Amino acid sequence: MKYFTNEDIDNFHHLFRINLINSCSGYKSANLIGTTSKDGSENVAVFSSITHIGSNPPMLGFFLRPTTVLRNTYENIKATGYYTVNHIHESILKDAHHTSAKYDATVSEFDKTNLAPEYKNDFKAPFVKKAPLQLAMKYVEEYEIKANNTILVIGKIVGLHIQEALIEEDGFINLSKARIATINGLDGYAIPKLKTRFGYQRPK
Amino acid sequence: MKYFTNEDIDNFHHLFRINLINSCSGYKSANLIGTTSKDGSENVAVFSSITHIGSNPPMLGFFLRPTTVLRNTYENIKATGYYTVNHIHESILKDAHHTSAKYDATVSEFDKTNLAPEYKNDFKAPFVKKAPLQLAMKYVEEYEIKANNTILVIGKIVGLHIQEALIEEDGFINLSKARIATINGLDGYAIPKLKTRFGYQRPK
Repeated sequence: MKYFTNEDIDNFHHLFRINLINSCSGYKSANLIGTTSKDGSENVAVFSSITHIGSNPPMLGFFLRPTTVLRNTYENIKATGYYTVNHIHESILKDAHHTSAKYDATVSEFDKTNLAPEYKNDFKAPFVKKAPLQLAMKYVEEYEIKANNTILVIGKIVGLHIQEALIEEDGFINLSKARIATINGLDGYAIPKLKTRFGYQRPK
Repeated sequence: MKYFTNEDIDNFHHLFRINLINSCSGYKSANLIGTTSKDGSENVAVFSSITHIGSNPPMLGFFLRPTTVLRNTYENIKATGYYTVNHIHESILKDAHHTSAKYDATVSEFDKTNLAPEYKNDFKAPFVKKAPLQLAMKYVEEYEIKANNTILVIGKIVGLHIQEALIEEDGFINLSKARIATINGLDGYAIPKLKTRFGYQRPK
């Protein structure tokens, strides 16, 4: 095993460190967040930090750095109170990743890729068409993470569109049936295949 | 597409809702957190919420619910200030998942499974032996998430043990080379295979 100390990590070239540290937490969720600005401009951007934080009420969180391109997403969420979470699947990988490019807020990533916006049930933010799982989200609260000036945004799931074939009898969503992606590091993508379910564990 | 409203989700049987909502954020990281209590009792527990929050300084976060079994992990981190994050890989899947069983704080999951503790470089918390990636973590701060009474724990990576063959020239860690797992929902596991890297994107 190779061992890197705190100091080694601090002294790495910044691109090496960004790649290493972004890969070292394990596999990440692969989602597109869809928003609109107050004047109706659409935005869609890839996020790999969307995390389950509770089932009742159904809540998700994600982290963002207010000084990057992702600011458009944040500003839109703050302005409208709503956003969508759409799963990245095999057939849109390349376009989904391209939304990480730093476009000006006046440019819609929907115009720069083959991703298409879709509006349903009068929800204010655009879903990504053909995503096998599309969540309608309502902003709840945010926390400023002092340790590194990121922001944790917490939202409530207020609607869930899903390909029916993915849901198993007990509510489990088989992500691999829809060829949903996972992210390794900043730019690596895999399409996992479910191996096994172990069920609820009790002490031996 | 099937559509579930906010009300539908609230009215599901609680097991159906737990499975559905735990699956709907996408793939999750699969890690074991190793800790010791003040009197030296060891604990190891599976977590699927470990999330990258920054590279410089290198920081990870994870969520826990103070009222569950995972409390042992939390209490130990608060008591000692240190913990380890160890990647779950194919050959320890079953034992790793079994650590989700609610053992009393006096019982070590290391004694109930084939997982073995490993101490290195005088670090106070136990690593999980043979994990291809082992992170030494220092507690930094925590946030109480008011929306659902969970806690976000933020830690700094202070050491990183890694199988050297996993690191590519630019710092990218190829998780699939070590057959590292990802979690789907509460109890589904997959071993992804890296498909592609798209690189840094610039506007077209």
